[in-house]
Amino acid sequence: FSANVSDDFETFYYNQTLDHFNYMPESYSTFQQKYVINSKYWDGANRSAPILAYLGAEAPLDGDLRIIGFLTDNAAEFKALLVYIEHRYYGESIPLGSSRKVALGNASTLGYFNSAQAIADYAEIIIYLKEKLKAQNSPVIVIGGSYGGMLASWFRLKYPHVAIGALASSAPILYFDDITPQDGYYSIVTNVFRETSETCYQTIKESWSTIDEVASKPDGLSVLSKTFKTCNPLNSVYVLKNYLVSMYGHAAQYNSPPKYPVTIVCGGIDGAPPETDILDKVFAGVVAYKGNSKCYVNALENISETTVGWRWQTCSELVIPMGITNNPMFQPSPFRLSDFTDWCRSLYGVPPRPHWVTTYYGGYDIKLVLNKFGSNIIFSNGLRDPYSSGGVLVNISESIVAVHTVNGRIFP
Amino acid sequence: FSANVSDDFETFYYNQTLDHFNYMPESYSTFQQKYVINSKYWDGANRSAPILAYLGAEAPLDGDLRIIGFLTDNAAEFKALLVYIEHRYYGESIPLGSSRKVALGNASTLGYFNSAQAIADYAEIIIYLKEKLKAQNSPVIVIGGSYGGMLASWFRLKYPHVAIGALASSAPILYFDDITPQDGYYSIVTNVFRETSETCYQTIKESWSTIDEVASKPDGLSVLSKTFKTCNPLNSVYVLKNYLVSMYGHAAQYNSPPKYPVTIVCGGIDGAPPETDILDKVFAGVVAYKGNSKCYVNALENISETTVGWRWQTCSELVIPMGITNNPMFQPSPFRLSDFTDWCRSLYGVPPRPHWVTTYYGGYDIKLVLNKFGSNIIFSNGLRDPYSSGGVLVNISESIVAVHTVNGRIFP
Repeated sequence: FSANVSDDFETFYYNQTLDHFNYMPESYSTFQQKYVINSKYWDGANRSAPILAYLGAEAPLDGDLRIIGFLTDNAAEFKALLVYIEHRYYGESIPLGSSRKVALGNASTLGYFNSAQAIADYAEIIIYLKEKLKAQNSPVIVIGGSYGGMLASWFRLKYPHVAIGALASSAPILYFDDITPQDGYYSIVTNVFRETSETCYQTIKESWSTIDEVASKPDGLSVLSKTFKTCNPLNSVYVLKNYLVSMYGHAAQYNSPPKYPVTIVCGGIDGAPPETDILDKVFAGVVAYKGNSKCYVNALENISETTVGWRWQTCSELVIPMGITNNPMFQPSPFRLSDFTDWCRSLYGVPPRPHWVTTYYGGYDIKLVLNKFGSNIIFSNGLRDPYSSGGVLVNISESIVAVHTVNGRIFP
Repeated sequence: FSANVSDDFETFYYNQTLDHFNYMPESYSTFQQKYVINSKYWDGANRSAPILAYLGAEAPLDGDLRIIGFLTDNAAEFKALLVYIEHRYYGESIPLGSSRKVALGNASTLGYFNSAQAIADYAEIIIYLKEKLKAQNSPVIVIGGSYGGMLASWFRLKYPHVAIGALASSAPILYFDDITPQDGYYSIVTNVFRETSETCYQTIKESWSTIDEVASKPDGLSVLSKTFKTCNPLNSVYVLKNYLVSMYGHAAQYNSPPKYPVTIVCGGIDGAPPETDILDKVFAGVVAYKGNSKCYVNALENISETTVGWRWQTCSELVIPMGITNNPMFQPSPFRLSDFTDWCRSLYGVPPRPHWVTTYYGGYDIKLVLNKFGSNIIFSNGLRDPYSSGGVLVNISESIVAVHTVNGRIFP
């Protein structure tokens, strides 16, 4: 993050309303919501030059400011103002006394943390900014990736008077309720591994029963702990298996140039000498992906804001029923709503609302519904991104279109 | 409400979520929301016969069931199912323990009482009903009048996946923020009176200074009390003037056949013998409109649910800046947001949010915005309805259209 880059950005804070949809006295509390402006390329309000509004997602905004390539390229081309807005409850945009600990303390304080409130925040800030800059005639395009891409498409649908268009990148807006089969994500993961290396795929496929076999022996967990150089002794085989499953998933999800993590994982697995034990091969894949480290698997990690925040979001509003029921590379691990609900309730005391996303934003029959309603949304997907299974991959109308690449993700 | 009519209606209650946009434990409370179904005309789910959903407004639903003509005529023609849904906090659909006194007690309990929550209620019930009736292929048209008409148009814009179209009758969706001039309503009232009777208009126009003159004399208020046969002695001239202003407004607003209240008021005023004193003429208008009664003006009335509920709605979300700054028939009485805010705060402890309606639903540049976004909304208005000043009176696109009649209101 070079000095030059940061010089172009100015940070501001907006006095944001805690609850847009309720009029209890507490709802009127405000918090300081962070937004960042880059006006280097803007041709100004007088020329009605456009505004590109990047909608922050499940992370502090600062990380997103580094995604400079795509946005600054476009800002330069369209002489646009760049506005980045942080999502409530992430980074510095913490309601309820500015302490993350308080704000994320329990369901009463977390209750205000959801996408409907977040896009209302964005609407308020964009309207305020256009007024402040006297830029009422500047068209606004909202832009986001992944969860931020969902927010961008939903923003265009709910606030068409605020944003004239949206670019929703890698946005799995159809991965809710039962629109997309629960196996969607991991079936793409499997395809990506298999296309990358048949032998790698075979090794992973066979590894699970070997892991189970070793684990079932007396002292098996400590053998596995040793094999995988775990940071702490394993107390359950599931810890190891979950680690590997999500590692494969992430490798596929971020399988973009120049690194191609799946190629790296498979390089480790396939690169081991032929006589290598199957678990050592898998471990070689871990080392290739994670790099040389003192230890692996169950480290006492600093849990990121994203992990903490996203857990709440998926346990309340954004229930993504992702599971494995029938997959050649993985053992079955189906998503069961009742188990998930119990788990969320044990964490937060309140259950998720698994049907709300489709009630509020739609998703079923999306082609039929949006063909005659709405306009100006680009859904972009990399077809090897496992989340593309829940994305919009076909053109819906003349101005609601899908673009995709075979490899990687288009954006960021 | 004849036995025959009521026989066609079946009443149900839906377990409704208290707060759709918040995940605090309290938000999960449910209440029994009333809805009524008439399936007499429906051709059934198998034939994908349509569903007409009447969106209840600021009154108990029972009153709306009497509006049978328009809806049953259409149900018969389209072989449609009729569904009437009561608005939260009216009639029997009272959250928080089913006691109106508790629910309307203070801002903490009233906080959940707003249009965004109400249309989310409607979405949930309609989705539930379609599932229950296996009527997923039946198109839903939402219908409403006045505030219910706003809800219908907003519903189509926010939940296009639930309703394929909307009929928004007499819906002043542009009477917010400063989109419509504050004088809009009373300038139409004046036009209607003037077109009905120039002499009536002149009498009303002149009456205000006469009222002020009498009031300014010693004992003037008791003279006015006597002249207007008030139910209780006037303690302020404003009570009388407000009564008359709102009587003229209502007469114009409901100036439909067969009664034409403005003609009735003016019949009283103009029908008085020529030598009659100006205040007696005005009083004759009151009597003509209100009928023979023991007393008039400041009775200790039972305040209706509509009055109580609407006062909260306009003091929180639906701030309609209606006033008189320059009108030949009335004395000036401008709308001042700061005074209104103070008044609301004194009533409820929280201020209104005057910009929220345009933030959430839009309204500015509505032609520009909706020309390329949205579809299937009919805005109907009677041009002599004073609220038509805040209505959509021009076609926006091929399928977002305005229809109007010169007289009266089209619906109900």
